[in-house]
Amino acid sequence: MKNKIKVTVWNENRHETHDGIIRKKRAGDDACRMHYPQGMHAAIKAALDLDGSFEVDCAWLDKDDEHGLSEEVLANTDVLFWWGHCAHGEVKDEVVDRIQKRVLEGMGLVVIHSGHKSKIFMRLMGTSCDLLYRVAAEKERVWVVEKAHPIAEGLPAYFELPHTEMYGERFEIPAPKDTVFISWYEGGEVFRSGLTFERGYGRIFYFAPGHEAYPIFHDKNVQRVLCNAAKWCAPRYRSSYGCKCMEPLEELKSRGE
Amino acid sequence: MKNKIKVTVWNENRHETHDGIIRKKRAGDDACRMHYPQGMHAAIKAALDLDGSFEVDCAWLDKDDEHGLSEEVLANTDVLFWWGHCAHGEVKDEVVDRIQKRVLEGMGLVVIHSGHKSKIFMRLMGTSCDLLYRVAAEKERVWVVEKAHPIAEGLPAYFELPHTEMYGERFEIPAPKDTVFISWYEGGEVFRSGLTFERGYGRIFYFAPGHEAYPIFHDKNVQRVLCNAAKWCAPRYRSSYGCKCMEPLEELKSRGE
Amino acid sequence: MKNKIKVTVWNENRHETHDGIIRKKRAGDDACRMHYPQGMHAAIKAALDLDGSFEVDCAWLDKDDEHGLSEEVLANTDVLFWWGHCAHGEVKDEVVDRIQKRVLEGMGLVVIHSGHKSKIFMRLMGTSCDLLYRVAAEKERVWVVEKAHPIAEGLPAYFELPHTEMYGERFEIPAPKDTVFISWYEGGEVFRSGLTFERGYGRIFYFAPGHEAYPIFHDKNVQRVLCNAAKWCAPRYRSSYGCKCMEPLEELKSRGE
Amino acid sequence: MKNKIKVTVWNENRHETHDGIIRKKRAGDDACRMHYPQGMHAAIKAALDLDGSFEVDCAWLDKDDEHGLSEEVLANTDVLFWWGHCAHGEVKDEVVDRIQKRVLEGMGLVVIHSGHKSKIFMRLMGTSCDLLYRVAAEKERVWVVEKAHPIAEGLPAYFELPHTEMYGERFEIPAPKDTVFISWYEGGEVFRSGLTFERGYGRIFYFAPGHEAYPIFHDKNVQRVLCNAAKWCAPRYRSSYGCKCMEPLEELKSRGE
Repeated sequence: MKNKIKVTVWNENRHETHDGIIRKKRAGDDACRMHYPQGMHAAIKAALDLDGSFEVDCAWLDKDDEHGLSEEVLANTDVLFWWGHCAHGEVKDEVVDRIQKRVLEGMGLVVIHSGHKSKIFMRLMGTSCDLLYRVAAEKERVWVVEKAHPIAEGLPAYFELPHTEMYGERFEIPAPKDTVFISWYEGGEVFRSGLTFERGYGRIFYFAPGHEAYPIFHDKNVQRVLCNAAKWCAPRYRSSYGCKCMEPLEELKSRGE
Repeated sequence: MKNKIKVTVWNENRHETHDGIIRKKRAGDDACRMHYPQGMHAAIKAALDLDGSFEVDCAWLDKDDEHGLSEEVLANTDVLFWWGHCAHGEVKDEVVDRIQKRVLEGMGLVVIHSGHKSKIFMRLMGTSCDLLYRVAAEKERVWVVEKAHPIAEGLPAYFELPHTEMYGERFEIPAPKDTVFISWYEGGEVFRSGLTFERGYGRIFYFAPGHEAYPIFHDKNVQRVLCNAAKWCAPRYRSSYGCKCMEPLEELKSRGE
Repeated sequence: MKNKIKVTVWNENRHETHDGIIRKKRAGDDACRMHYPQGMHAAIKAALDLDGSFEVDCAWLDKDDEHGLSEEVLANTDVLFWWGHCAHGEVKDEVVDRIQKRVLEGMGLVVIHSGHKSKIFMRLMGTSCDLLYRVAAEKERVWVVEKAHPIAEGLPAYFELPHTEMYGERFEIPAPKDTVFISWYEGGEVFRSGLTFERGYGRIFYFAPGHEAYPIFHDKNVQRVLCNAAKWCAPRYRSSYGCKCMEPLEELKSRGE
Repeated sequence: MKNKIKVTVWNENRHETHDGIIRKKRAGDDACRMHYPQGMHAAIKAALDLDGSFEVDCAWLDKDDEHGLSEEVLANTDVLFWWGHCAHGEVKDEVVDRIQKRVLEGMGLVVIHSGHKSKIFMRLMGTSCDLLYRVAAEKERVWVVEKAHPIAEGLPAYFELPHTEMYGERFEIPAPKDTVFISWYEGGEVFRSGLTFERGYGRIFYFAPGHEAYPIFHDKNVQRVLCNAAKWCAPRYRSSYGCKCMEPLEELKSRGE
């Protein structure tokens, strides 16, 4: 067990839990509950569990007053998955600070679909992360552009999602390290749908598929991508946990001012 | 006149000039002659001439025994355009050596469409430059991904070509410097269709549209791209012409071995 | 005059203005006042003025309650220069928001020396921007790595600063677009000292030289770099001023949800 | 044994084997024989053997008329190490073709020191690969710039080589994927001394240290780099051996022309 990669799957969990009154029902809620009766986080966890390489916990916005992401939880997380949509603004800034710090120290981060407008992703990118979108249940074909990238391992030349939300360019992000996937949409758009970034000692993967209203997390190829991404994002210095700096900066600085 | 950018448009010019016997007729030849009665190079020259920023000459495979690309011609070229397809193998290696040397010294290079398999492009890339293709007169929609890039100046968010050859990923090239355009194809593929590279002091732009059998070089947006590309690829050290090294390397080396 | 690039030089202006009581005197203050009796911003403005391509204004932390950077000032700025050091924390978050928004819209940003820890630079980078440092008046030799980059235009293969603060790797930034300069320090360190980034439609240049206690802004090569950087960072869509989005995103989105 | 990474260490092996008459003695030969009585390839092999992760064979220029690099040898090589210097021109073009093909298929390549001017490296880069140099037995300090990169695993913030050949910028290569190391030299130069590239499905690492006249391959940190590099460059699709294309390109193309 000790060598497993520790994953925390974070889900906003609001599409799944509206009561129609305090939390107004939104488009996609019914479909979301139908496809993910235990929540999208449970479906993502199930996919990761099947692989056998991970030790997976879940957290969500209303889990506790730190959204289930205490210092301790994050200190024990190798890779954090992030799904958010309608409540990005409710995520507390101090929790975002904490996540950013952990990413810079080496924790991996997998940001899915509408997480592109989450505080943590925008914070790490420094840009608006805006994009084009359209919900019309159209077909998406995900092309593997970097076939030799570990995140593409085991995938065919392309795979299809029969019904999806369209995400289109211009995606307002800094230039990615690798463009692993580019998606084609039935309606005429293209999107860089699988992107890697490095920030500090942490690796980040953004993956476009994952709309709440379609059974996308039940798709075998999507599940494969999520497992590959968790492996690729895992910290490369596991022995350094608890250590803020991976270089003896303080020592070196002491020669100075 | 003295400040104009000197462009040499090189075209294989074989689709336009087959006699049916010595040079076997190929698919696309008739359409090519119909759309480009003076040759594709003439259409590209006309587009550049209209802009007013360029002094344009043309060269082609059978122009003379150096393919119209003597040392002198290249020494007087700021930006070389390259269109080739069925006779890549007939381009002499010493001419390719000469072009590569000039690019490394700072000459710009605009490689169009099937030029992806030309000796000079493969030489500068170091890879196979293979891709997926299909000739089925389908629609291509070219999306502008880097809106602020000079090569995209004046273009709309996307533009369409009603009939084109499909070029699809995986395009076997090194990671580009900028992915300016990504194309969507009716049949379900995507392609990084406008790419920049830097090699030595020279800038290179690869542009996918430009099949011989369709009137693509008469399209206003394509013409805009070609003019923008010629400006972007123009050498940044015009005063350095004739100088092989732009750094005083010899002097510095003399401190050495 | 109308075609000049509008530059606003922002300087913290605290080393120059301490009174020893309310604002405690810091190491470097006396040397700073000696080398820059009108402030570092005045020296930078003088260097830009000499070039003839710029219309230059200055702003500083205590200029007014917006640090001299009102909406109107920023709307009329093509390129913002940023020098800060001991009072990064005093820059108001709403001003930082405003600058970030303008950079993403296309305004250029030149960040100098200790500005690496400014709120605006860290915001745009998403990382800690930490580095190694030592103040020991040692020699720095700035090597031009990308000789053909416009920011290196007119520079020799390298130039030297006889006395400087050492800045060393690991510089905690995202991978830059271009590494224009790498510096060598007498004491044994190296530093990527001239770096470009693109965020949204804006260009960013980070330049390491510029310590307050040495006459670095009076150096001809440094002045050349600052002028080149201002030109390189100038927006590429001057006609788009006042327009938030450079793509018709709203229109495109209206096809959607 | 079956899971070990198969490494072939290729050494020109001429500094080690001159007879003073047919092969003229060159500067560095005596020192090379002293430090590497069995040849530099033997020292590199010994370092890799100690790690326990590799199955290592050696080849050299005069081993047989294919320089020890037959089709069969290369088909059984996961990672090829390359050391060459005074006889780059004697490497047969058909062997270079063969190596390039294997790299594009996924074989790793580690190019050491003066291998920067080898046919295979220049072929894969597409540029001159020129650099500045000086043999003056000076000190080199190798700084780790990408601390989290697998090639830097286990290294300190920097390490030193007391006597080395200086290699300086501008190194005429395409932009690397990662700049893992930057070296500082006693005489005042800097050099990007550890660089990664990807070409086709293959990974390439260039490492500057390794001059024939100094005991550099006996240095523990250098040995660590070589082992790390061999692991990083190992093909990511071991099951695909013998398969030219890793994507079903032929099948996809058959939909086409």
